Amino acid sequence: MGILVVGTVAFDSVKTPEGEASDAIGGSATYFSAAASFYAPVDVIAVVGNDFPMASLDFLRERQVDVSGLEVKEGKTFRWAGEYAANMNDRRTIDTQLNVFSGFKPVLADRHRAHDHVFLANLDPDVQRDVLTQACRTDQSDRPGVVACDTMDFWIEGQRTSLLSTLSGVDVLIINDSEALQLVEDHNLVRAAERILELGPRAVVVKRGAHGATLCTRDAWFGIPSFPVADVVDPTGAGDTFAGGFMGYLARSGEMGVGALKRAMVHGSVMASFNVEDFSVRRLESLTQDEITDRHDRFMEMITP
Amino acid sequence: MGILVVGTVAFDSVKTPEGEASDAIGGSATYFSAAASFYAPVDVIAVVGNDFPMASLDFLRERQVDVSGLEVKEGKTFRWAGEYAANMNDRRTIDTQLNVFSGFKPVLADRHRAHDHVFLANLDPDVQRDVLTQACRTDQSDRPGVVACDTMDFWIEGQRTSLLSTLSGVDVLIINDSEALQLVEDHNLVRAAERILELGPRAVVVKRGAHGATLCTRDAWFGIPSFPVADVVDPTGAGDTFAGGFMGYLARSGEMGVGALKRAMVHGSVMASFNVEDFSVRRLESLTQDEITDRHDRFMEMITP
Repeated sequence: MGILVVGTVAFDSVKTPEGEASDAIGGSATYFSAAASFYAPVDVIAVVGNDFPMASLDFLRERQVDVSGLEVKEGKTFRWAGEYAANMNDRRTIDTQLNVFSGFKPVLADRHRAHDHVFLANLDPDVQRDVLTQACRTDQSDRPGVVACDTMDFWIEGQRTSLLSTLSGVDVLIINDSEALQLVEDHNLVRAAERILELGPRAVVVKRGAHGATLCTRDAWFGIPSFPVADVVDPTGAGDTFAGGFMGYLARSGEMGVGALKRAMVHGSVMASFNVEDFSVRRLESLTQDEITDRHDRFMEMITP
Repeated sequence: MGILVVGTVAFDSVKTPEGEASDAIGGSATYFSAAASFYAPVDVIAVVGNDFPMASLDFLRERQVDVSGLEVKEGKTFRWAGEYAANMNDRRTIDTQLNVFSGFKPVLADRHRAHDHVFLANLDPDVQRDVLTQACRTDQSDRPGVVACDTMDFWIEGQRTSLLSTLSGVDVLIINDSEALQLVEDHNLVRAAERILELGPRAVVVKRGAHGATLCTRDAWFGIPSFPVADVVDPTGAGDTFAGGFMGYLARSGEMGVGALKRAMVHGSVMASFNVEDFSVRRLESLTQDEITDRHDRFMEMITP
């Protein structure tokens, strides 16, 4: 079973204590599909400008990623620039240029409806809901089996009503710790996760950066640390890479029970841990299945009590 | 086998978003021994002023805690006052009065040398080393089997040389994440833990507050989240309670391998999770073995992949 991802393909200019990268390939859909491609076929829907070097996505095509849903529009590609603090956790946005991404209206083709797993990356919640509506087959009750989404402070602040409407229709919310607190206006992550479950999702995954990740469902709670990386080079895309490993595992296994969700968390963490080792998608480009398997086994030893 | 703890018995005045407590019983040795007493006999060495209500320690005496090593000095007991931010993580010290604690010179009796486990709570590293010297039996090579210590930013900044000397003689350093980074002047916790191992300890336990804890030895790495507590009332003493559960388990098991250290981490987390549910040592006073066993089993389910 495959995965449909709707998100951004972008240029990132990033400065970290370990160096910098200018106009490097980034974007939520790029990171997500690079990670998920190790687990299942992926269909990408996104938009780029005609300044985008399509060859830079060849490494995705060589795996199981169909990028034919990438719309090329006259104009410039979405650009983000940011700088990370010494702790590699706090970051500051220097510049955001939406460019062709502004007014992005994804249009699903018939083949996109074949996927049972859908990831709505961090986007305008109106757009997320529109994709979800299109992803339904014959009628609105025939929806994909597992829909996950991400969001950010910008939508929580400016589009709360729309976001809540989107959340009522998704199965899994994958969200940063600070944004989980902001979403339900609480200071305690345990309470926050429980309250998010009341908004619709049957599972909440809270990403805590270098501190790990937490899964909360109505019946279960599961927490893991992050895989210990001594030399973090660039944390950009870690969250989307996590989501890629997480959804990838669920799609490959075809399961959605607590056991599968726990295993998906581990795979998400492993994929994110590779991504932070280099700028842009470089580490994901060179990554092999053997490396993933090896790190997964080591990580299991590190988290099994 | 029993445990010797050297630390503070104090009055704390604490304000948190959930309320406040004035001149409540606190201190590192109090929290530590309250937790460790569920696992092994504990001998406490500390000093209080003649304003200290000894009856407030009756709950410790009723367990396996010998408080006869508590020196009562003319004067006032050590007092600390602090206030926690809404996130229950950041805190601000409002007042510290060393009182009789200033110039504290612990003197070990013969029976204190019977213990194979020693915890040197957060103290002047000169004093920690002096205790360690006294804890040796016939000669300096006949030292206790497992010595753990804690420290804080104050000693890292002001007494670095002495602290490094103490660290070279302990088996386990139990330390906050921010202080681990400060100790070796690094920004990455994985590297920091590895560098601390080079200073002497064969195990480092990094406490990450609500984010869990990490164990690092030369051969192994182990990370756990914290037990999810929805209603944190007062985090004061969580670190010492963790240390109490951790050392308590090691003393009870008599083991010191990676498996035992992992299990000790889980017990430490469980004990800390109870402590934060109420002000001062109230929750530890009412705590029962059944509650510990029940939470331990639930926590194991929450962290087993």
